[in-house]
Formats: sequence, structure tokens, C-alpha cells
Amino acid sequence: MKKLINDPANLLAEALHGMDRALPGVTIDHRNRIVYRAEPKDSGKVALISGGGSGHEPLHGGFVGPGMLDAACAGEVFTSPTPDQLVEATKTADRGAGVLHIVKNYTGDVMNFDMAAELAAAETGVEVATVVVNDDVAVEDSTWTAGRRGVGLTVLLEKLVGAAAEEGRDLAAVQALAERINAQGRSMGMALTSCTVPAAGRPTFDLPEDEMEMGVGIHGEPGRHRVPLAPAAEVARQLVEPVLADLDFGPGPAIVMLNGMGGTPLIEQYLMYGEVAALLEKAGITVARTLVGNYITSLDMQGCSVTVLKADDELLRLWDAPVNTAGLRWRA
Amino acid sequence: MKKLINDPANLLAEALHGMDRALPGVTIDHRNRIVYRAEPKDSGKVALISGGGSGHEPLHGGFVGPGMLDAACAGEVFTSPTPDQLVEATKTADRGAGVLHIVKNYTGDVMNFDMAAELAAAETGVEVATVVVNDDVAVEDSTWTAGRRGVGLTVLLEKLVGAAAEEGRDLAAVQALAERINAQGRSMGMALTSCTVPAAGRPTFDLPEDEMEMGVGIHGEPGRHRVPLAPAAEVARQLVEPVLADLDFGPGPAIVMLNGMGGTPLIEQYLMYGEVAALLEKAGITVARTLVGNYITSLDMQGCSVTVLKADDELLRLWDAPVNTAGLRWRA
Repeated sequence: MKKLINDPANLLAEALHGMDRALPGVTIDHRNRIVYRAEPKDSGKVALISGGGSGHEPLHGGFVGPGMLDAACAGEVFTSPTPDQLVEATKTADRGAGVLHIVKNYTGDVMNFDMAAELAAAETGVEVATVVVNDDVAVEDSTWTAGRRGVGLTVLLEKLVGAAAEEGRDLAAVQALAERINAQGRSMGMALTSCTVPAAGRPTFDLPEDEMEMGVGIHGEPGRHRVPLAPAAEVARQLVEPVLADLDFGPGPAIVMLNGMGGTPLIEQYLMYGEVAALLEKAGITVARTLVGNYITSLDMQGCSVTVLKADDELLRLWDAPVNTAGLRWRA
Repeated sequence: MKKLINDPANLLAEALHGMDRALPGVTIDHRNRIVYRAEPKDSGKVALISGGGSGHEPLHGGFVGPGMLDAACAGEVFTSPTPDQLVEATKTADRGAGVLHIVKNYTGDVMNFDMAAELAAAETGVEVATVVVNDDVAVEDSTWTAGRRGVGLTVLLEKLVGAAAEEGRDLAAVQALAERINAQGRSMGMALTSCTVPAAGRPTFDLPEDEMEMGVGIHGEPGRHRVPLAPAAEVARQLVEPVLADLDFGPGPAIVMLNGMGGTPLIEQYLMYGEVAALLEKAGITVARTLVGNYITSLDMQGCSVTVLKADDELLRLWDAPVNTAGLRWRA
């Protein structure tokens, strides 16, 4: 294993220290491993909290800041944050208008966020609503999931719902928007290579030199099937077809993300995006907004994922609203 | 070789098509492989052009936009752009105040930019000035270079000089600033793994499982020496010491970049940045601004580089000026 780390046991703590030094826009509670925005939003606005296992950076800590998340709880690599962390973040981030928990659908995450919501309500009366993201069309149930996994749509949802919370919508409205986005978006990913979890010291799965894993999860969980290596155009087809088969995106605008898994160069990501965009246009979808880059990664995995979100004027307006985080940043 | 590509011969053309679809802020001349900003800057302002071999994305095409470059010429992977490309970009980007060529110090790049500057002047009378970036302290001369290589400082220079050009400084002043930045910045990089050039189909160099290459070039050129794998703290020491030994950064502010080589996860980059920042502070350097991420890459290489630029109030002000490109984006 070749990694730029010291002791694997200290990876998360040390990465958070580096992040703290690098990013003036966030404040980090190192004891509880919570990333907060340095300047909390105005009181009276709904706060957004997410979190999950580490190893998916910039998700979630890199998405803390104006226009997106208020706090992110970092678990160990590919391990859920604890209820205690989530309670602490919920209490601290609340600005008096309640807190939305944004949870990727993995069994441990869902359980711990649920427990935290109950504890926070009981201890402090803070109102908590939850959205569980489950956009991955690849598999129903998997190693760590009942139902579908939550993957790339989480990035888009955090941006869009963040903008809505910034506008001052109430908790019920923010949650309803989050549910609508989850219902309108789908993703599928693939891997050329496995990731290697530092504490394990070896690749999570074996993948022969002439095969790729279609539908892989962001922790290296198995996908739909292994297929022979294929050109990018064919890879794009095998990602886009299951996404389009799963939801009628109709004619109309969409927000599309071509996400790199962490080890895939940007030049390949742009090439893949060209293939994906051509297929979506052929299917009558108008790509209105685009992200290409490493947004939800799986450590050093080589591969990519495609996320398509059916959009409308409201979602496009929320998308264009200013955001100022390490991972996503633009002005209106 | 596992890559998300079709035919290696079409990699650049297809990646530029994907980039064109993904980035509304740029216009691409596909015949000449030039990325332009979609809305040219005001006439009467100095234009900035850079370019070089592809495979270092987001450099340079991802840095085209307000506050940074006016045009970027893309060569084939790790291959200089041609004089014809550079002449075309120079003529098109000129806004009547002359053009600065930002050239990384590689023999082919220097030769082709020189020839283009002469041709553009002869054909059209456009005034061209040149800065050659040579910040890499690792080696004097190398496979493709007489003198030192141009690496990470190029990113910082394009940002800072872009801001100065946006202010309306004349060509001589813009060039003088660029020379000053080049004189005040130093870099050093390292690799855990080789990159693989798609057209070659195999790793550029062999690196045993228990060794790393200190001082590696961004094309996989040999560095200073191979050493046994070491913890991040020791890697940071081996990168920072040669940088600090090469230039007196004095007490005072610096702009620092911890750059990922393309295949290294962001969580490791943050950890490395923490180690680097601690060493710089111990040496009396105040880190005033920071970049952590993949900014000048070497395809899928795992590794990182450190760039330190001695700063002052003027450079910090230029750094903070707004920039709006795919790779670097913030408001004032």
C-alpha cells in the first residue's frame, strides 16, 4: 500500500488538522470531528447537517459554507459518524428554525442519524427533519444498505437545499424540497480499480486487469456485474442506460454530474462527460447545468459516476444561487 | 492499462469536446485546440496566454476565464503545442495592449513559444512578452529541460498576473510582475506511483512497491533520488527542506499550494498539507493563503508537490481579486 499518511489510526484526525489550516471558511471541532462554517448563518434559518464515513472528500466537509451545509460530521474511513457527534452538531448548528439531516442510505448512517434526531429533540427540543438519499440505480440492497445506496445526488441535493435554506424557507418546505430532489435524481457508477482502505492495507476487491465493475458502490461494494474493459463510449452507455431506464426524465432540463472516483484524471473525466452528454441529448434531455470533477470519491479508486437530476426553473434558480465552500463555489 | 478513453489517438480532441460541453465560460477552437474565455476581456488590457502538453488538467485550459488566462493552447499529452497554435491564440486573444506568454521551462515549449512570438510580431505587429517559469528546485536540467523545470508556481503566477492584467497594467508591468513572482517561488514534488501515458500504454517509469521518487517531474521525469517509502511527516520534510534551502523566504507571508498529482485522494492531500504547514511555520513563514487540491497534475500519478511563494501586500491583494475559471474561482 502506498499512501501519503502517517499511522492509519491517525488519518482522519490529521486530515482534519490539515483541512483546518487550509480552509479559513470553516471551523473544526476536533474532539467531535465536526466541520462548521466559520460564520454561522442568520438565526431563524434552517440549518443543514450531513456526515458519513470519511474517504469521500470533498464530501461532506468540503461542502460546508454559505449556500450549502452548516455542519458535517466525519466518521472514520467508510464508517458512520456516531450519534453523539450528530447530536452535538445538531445542537450547535441549530439557528432556532430546526435542522435538516441529509443522510446517505447506508444502514449505519440511517441508524445513527435516527438516534441522534431523537436524542437532540429529547435533550434540547430542537426540531429535526431527515431526508435519506437513495439515488443509486445499480443495486437494490447491498453490503451495507437496505434499499438503494445514496451516492452522487447527495452533492446536488446539498447545494440545492442549501440555497433554499439560505432563502429562509421553513423546515417543512426545506424537507419537502429535499424529498422532491431525491425523487427526481438517479446515479450509477463504475470502477476500473479498487480503492484501498488505509487501515486494511490492501485493495477492497480484486479486479482483473481486463475487467471493470459496473454499478460499484462508493466503498467498493459490488455492483451489478463485471464486464470486459470497454472504450469510454461503451462505458458511458452502460452508465446512462440504467439511469434513463429507471426514471422518465422526459424532455426538459437536467442538472448532470460526471464525478471522478478519486484516482481518475480530469482529462478522462472531461472525455467521459462528452460521451454522457451526447447520450443524454439523444434521449431528449437538455443538459442545463453541469459538474465535472471529483465531488464524491472513494479514496484512490479509478472510475466515475453519472448523476442526472430532472430540473425545472425553481431548481435551476437554486442551483445558480451563490455558494462558497471549498468544494463548490460560485457567485450568483 | 485501464483508462476511461476511446482510441488514445483521439483523447485530446474528445476531452476538449467534453470540456466544451461542460464549461459555459469558455469557447474552444477545436481545429487549433485553443481554449478561450467566452467573453473576451475589455480592449486595451494585456492578454495572457499559456499552454503546454495535455495531461496536467486543470492546467491550463481550466484556468481560462476572468481574472486568469485569456487563452490556453493544448498540445497532445505531454507534448508542446505547435507554433501555429500559439500564433493563432496570440492574434485572437490580443486586445490591443499586447500579450504575455506564460511558458513552463521545457525545451519544446520554450522553442515553440519563442517562434510563435516572432511570427505573431512579424505577421501582425502584436507585441509579445514572455515569462519562463522555472520553479522546480529538484533538478538542474532534466530529460526535457535545460535549467530548472516549470511546475506548480505556474498556477499561482497565472492567477496573480491575471489579476494584474485585469487591473489594466501595461505589458511591461505585467511582465515585470511575472518575473518577480517567478523569482520568489519554489516547488518540489514527489511520486508514489508512475503515470501512464495512454499512447504508450504502460507506466512511464518503474517504481518498486517500497520506494518513492523525490523530486519527480510532472511528466514522470526522474527526480533527485529514490528513497524508501516513508510516513507523510517525513515526505513533507523531504519536500519542504529543499524548497527552503533554495531561497530565503524570510519571516513574512507566503502563498502555499499543496498540489495533488492526479491519483492521490483529497484526504491524503489535506493530511500532507497539515505536515507542510507545520514545517513552514516552524521556519518562520506565515502561511497567508493556501491551495490544496489537484491543480497541476500528471495524469493518474499518485503523489504531491509543494509550492511556496514569498508574498507581500501587493501579491496578497492580487491573490484575493476575483477569479472565475473552472479550476480556480472566488469572489473578491
